Amino acid sequence: MKINSKRLERHFKEMSEIGKLGETGTCRPAHSPEEREAFKLAASWMEDAGMVTRIDNFGNLIGRYDGIKNDLPVLMMGSHLDSQPYGGRYDGVAGVLTAIEVVKTLHDNNIKPDRPIEVISFADEEGWRFNKGLFGSRGILGKLEDGELERKDKDGISRADALKSFGCDINNFKKDEYKPGSIFCFLELHIEQGPVLEAKGNEIGIVSGISGPLWLTVNFKGMAGHAGSVPMAMRRDALLGAAEVTVALNEIVNQIPGAPTVGTVATMNVFPASRNIIAEEVSFTVDLRDIDLERRNRYEKQLREKIKEIAEKNKLEYSISEDTNSDPRYCAEWIKDIMHEEAKKLSLDTPELMSGPFHDSLALSYACDYGMIFVQSKDGISHNPLEYSSPDHLAKGAQLLLQTVSEILKK
Amino acid sequence: MKINSKRLERHFKEMSEIGKLGETGTCRPAHSPEEREAFKLAASWMEDAGMVTRIDNFGNLIGRYDGIKNDLPVLMMGSHLDSQPYGGRYDGVAGVLTAIEVVKTLHDNNIKPDRPIEVISFADEEGWRFNKGLFGSRGILGKLEDGELERKDKDGISRADALKSFGCDINNFKKDEYKPGSIFCFLELHIEQGPVLEAKGNEIGIVSGISGPLWLTVNFKGMAGHAGSVPMAMRRDALLGAAEVTVALNEIVNQIPGAPTVGTVATMNVFPASRNIIAEEVSFTVDLRDIDLERRNRYEKQLREKIKEIAEKNKLEYSISEDTNSDPRYCAEWIKDIMHEEAKKLSLDTPELMSGPFHDSLALSYACDYGMIFVQSKDGISHNPLEYSSPDHLAKGAQLLLQTVSEILKK
Repeated sequence: MKINSKRLERHFKEMSEIGKLGETGTCRPAHSPEEREAFKLAASWMEDAGMVTRIDNFGNLIGRYDGIKNDLPVLMMGSHLDSQPYGGRYDGVAGVLTAIEVVKTLHDNNIKPDRPIEVISFADEEGWRFNKGLFGSRGILGKLEDGELERKDKDGISRADALKSFGCDINNFKKDEYKPGSIFCFLELHIEQGPVLEAKGNEIGIVSGISGPLWLTVNFKGMAGHAGSVPMAMRRDALLGAAEVTVALNEIVNQIPGAPTVGTVATMNVFPASRNIIAEEVSFTVDLRDIDLERRNRYEKQLREKIKEIAEKNKLEYSISEDTNSDPRYCAEWIKDIMHEEAKKLSLDTPELMSGPFHDSLALSYACDYGMIFVQSKDGISHNPLEYSSPDHLAKGAQLLLQTVSEILKK
Repeated sequence: MKINSKRLERHFKEMSEIGKLGETGTCRPAHSPEEREAFKLAASWMEDAGMVTRIDNFGNLIGRYDGIKNDLPVLMMGSHLDSQPYGGRYDGVAGVLTAIEVVKTLHDNNIKPDRPIEVISFADEEGWRFNKGLFGSRGILGKLEDGELERKDKDGISRADALKSFGCDINNFKKDEYKPGSIFCFLELHIEQGPVLEAKGNEIGIVSGISGPLWLTVNFKGMAGHAGSVPMAMRRDALLGAAEVTVALNEIVNQIPGAPTVGTVATMNVFPASRNIIAEEVSFTVDLRDIDLERRNRYEKQLREKIKEIAEKNKLEYSISEDTNSDPRYCAEWIKDIMHEEAKKLSLDTPELMSGPFHDSLALSYACDYGMIFVQSKDGISHNPLEYSSPDHLAKGAQLLLQTVSEILKK
């Protein structure tokens, strides 16, 4: 049984037209008209693959391929169709389109499995619009937190309003949650988004686990003043403090050369942001990740001490909020074993590697066993219009996913 | 000969009622009905002080106190009565009201000087309404630029229309220009707008000069990438580069402890500004000021070298644009000498300090010798309703101005 690589390539091409940015980029915000258009297109392919589709109240697109015994826990696959604001054509899309291709291949081969299969495009995996991601995948597991619906995007639109505009009934989440035990396992194919597979010369990798990100927001408050008249020694410059923390974080995560630890400050909001007024207030985000949780905790402690020290030196008030704190989550051994076995049949050399980025799998890992397939990313580039994975590599990943699903369906 | 501190205090109080904002704030836009009302009140005080008043075609209020030899170059004093949109009661007002008080005192003492004295409230010193200031002071020196009359305020009203509504004849500027050599010197009392005098425990300071700001915009371009998957060693992080420059600028301007050099990064525009995407592009502004131009140039050179070095280290492309580059303008030694001498007689300890902000004096400095007196600002706050200088300090400043004028009139 073979997936249809031409069809898969065509689907990537058609999907890339929605929210197209420049030649090769994509901007499809969560809960946006662009995502809705993407859902419409994906739903048409799902239906063509024998699935029944719906959009739930979290804004997830779900295609269901019924089994013979529909009360059996579902085999779930998927990823997301929302993109970064300045994103590429493969992040998330690869997981949805290859999952559809797998079901389409089963359908075309008249395979009716015992257990039902569902393909999901999860809502707001990316998280930039409301500064919190994995919305849909946490939603179906009843893991939303207080205040999530009140979060606002940069235009002042709340998550609640965005969902309502999308057609969701935010007072009816409960009925769309999955009961414990109702998901048999979760499979996600994703582009690597890093440079490891290419550097090793591998087309496909098997994920060992997802390293947990720690997300902090730091706020510094100093004192505005005329940039021409407040002497350096009397300043309380919030932007200088933020710059010092940014430099310090870089030093902390580079302590062990070659270690996979990564630390990033990628946003900086300055008030009043007038060139001749000393910044009174600055808030910025910290993203800290490591496979080794003990080391990540140690670095977090060092960072917090540094923030305190820098705030004191610059006479700043400060606050730190923890937006996300995930532990590393490991893939199921039995799923990895199947993947390795099937990869061997395809003559694919598939190294195991950790995922630095999180994925919808992270949320699902708390509800069921999960497995992930990584496809090589050219130059390790992602979250950028230059993001690229070749049609050939994507087809090989889809074929491995198909064979993995076929084996799991035997269980 | 003594100024009347009660009268001066009363004038501040009466003036603060015009365009009053909250308890202690002021909003008196340039060329507005509020400014006209302020002019009417100030003109009544000028006339009471023996001056003949007029409003010229630039929208300046001018009070002239004739001398015995009216063809001698004029001793000019003043500042402005327009305010910031969310301003205080002293910025500009202090220079106009103390100058009127000085002439009133001369008049009450029947002093008829050889040379004429003029007190001016210059039009639109602040510059926020049409995004370009020092309008009246540049106007009388023939230094307006092309297109200034076409600039519009936020309501779409052009400078030309605002001046016409104010009663000015914009086709008749020429007759209101001052010929080269016709101004003997210019004196301006102003609130410090910074924290130096208060910190030193001084009520009054003598300005050494207005430091010229160097304004740069720096742009760094790196490469976006997923904050979870691009190893630290492979990054091209534009925000890290900007942070390193911000820290470096702070180190550069602090090389000589206690020097008046100031350097500020007060804006930072990050793209794409998503917490888990390494910043691809960052632009930020640099404001560098020093009374010592040679030192400022040296520091600029160090900064540019540092930017180059940081760009190379982080594999960033960069560009630097120069938005403003003004030379420092020094106060006349002979005027400072008189001020120091007279301050001594008043038992005032008057340190010299540089003015970071501009004033009308900056425009006048190109036409004649000038001197400035600074009055302590509480907490260094200005351009804010919390701006405050005490009646006692203002009276002492006015008395020093009176004695300075008296000495100059002997020349």
